[in-house]
Amino acid sequence: MEESISKVIRQRRSIRKFTDQIPGDKEIEQILEAARWAPSGQNNQPWKFMIIQDTKTREGLAQFTSYKRIVRGAPISIVVCLDTVISYNRDKDLMAIGAAIENMLLCVYSLGLGACWLGEIINRKEKVSQYIDLAGDLEIMAVVVIGYPAENPDDVARRPLKELLIEPPRSKLRGI
Amino acid sequence: MEESISKVIRQRRSIRKFTDQIPGDKEIEQILEAARWAPSGQNNQPWKFMIIQDTKTREGLAQFTSYKRIVRGAPISIVVCLDTVISYNRDKDLMAIGAAIENMLLCVYSLGLGACWLGEIINRKEKVSQYIDLAGDLEIMAVVVIGYPAENPDDVARRPLKELLIEPPRSKLRGI
Repeated sequence: MEESISKVIRQRRSIRKFTDQIPGDKEIEQILEAARWAPSGQNNQPWKFMIIQDTKTREGLAQFTSYKRIVRGAPISIVVCLDTVISYNRDKDLMAIGAAIENMLLCVYSLGLGACWLGEIINRKEKVSQYIDLAGDLEIMAVVVIGYPAENPDDVARRPLKELLIEPPRSKLRGI
Repeated sequence: MEESISKVIRQRRSIRKFTDQIPGDKEIEQILEAARWAPSGQNNQPWKFMIIQDTKTREGLAQFTSYKRIVRGAPISIVVCLDTVISYNRDKDLMAIGAAIENMLLCVYSLGLGACWLGEIINRKEKVSQYIDLAGDLEIMAVVVIGYPAENPDDVARRPLKELLIEPPRSKLRGI
């Protein structure tokens, strides 16, 4: 699928239902390559990833979120972590991780796969860390579930651009 | 420029030198559209943007960062803010803003423009806020400078994928 960036950004949707088909290693590698090339402050690359494909482990992971069915139903979960040893500024490092996750989601969509960025699971990050034997210097920031889409979600809404713009201090507003 | 997402992600570079040519309103609108369509927790869209094109205002902005020359030399600065009224979880909201900024950078590149994500300026975010008359409920998270590239930076390095992977709790490592 070769589409313009703007189209991919605009058309990507969260996918919460998946077929049983398991994405190949090549696809997963491409998705993590996309994450790897995200920008970060001082190029510190404060991210680490755990790929969970084992059914029992995914079943266990699901118990820590209200979105159990999504985690259970997705063939692959990728746990995205902040490496607190590498981290130099928490705010900037979290934004870098957000950039890496967005790269993953865009890549997923361009491969014809589907994904959902699960943030709610970090409410129980300590318990999840314990469950997956995470090293103490890694902090869970999200789980991204990936698979082949078994749904075609409706369009979602965003606030119009005009509501997002703040007037600059001098009256030099651009005409948009 | 119609290229695959993976290529755009891989080939994008930070641009720190710009020509005098000013990007058009249409380009700036496309870039902010890309930001607007980023994912966010509960779709809360916790971002706001200030477009600064006025030369004097940019000159003033430049005084708050060590990267003065980059801000002065770029025809447009976009101040990216967290809307703390909309914010419901600071960690998730910062990741969402990172996703929005990455969308901007990818869109910039695909339009043949260049950009640099400046994080260092948030070290003096209170002073910058005062200077640009920012409302008290908005918090500066980054400045993205945009223009036409006047340099073609060398390739940058990233840690190899193998170093970013954490072994899952069961011995179900994927073959990558």
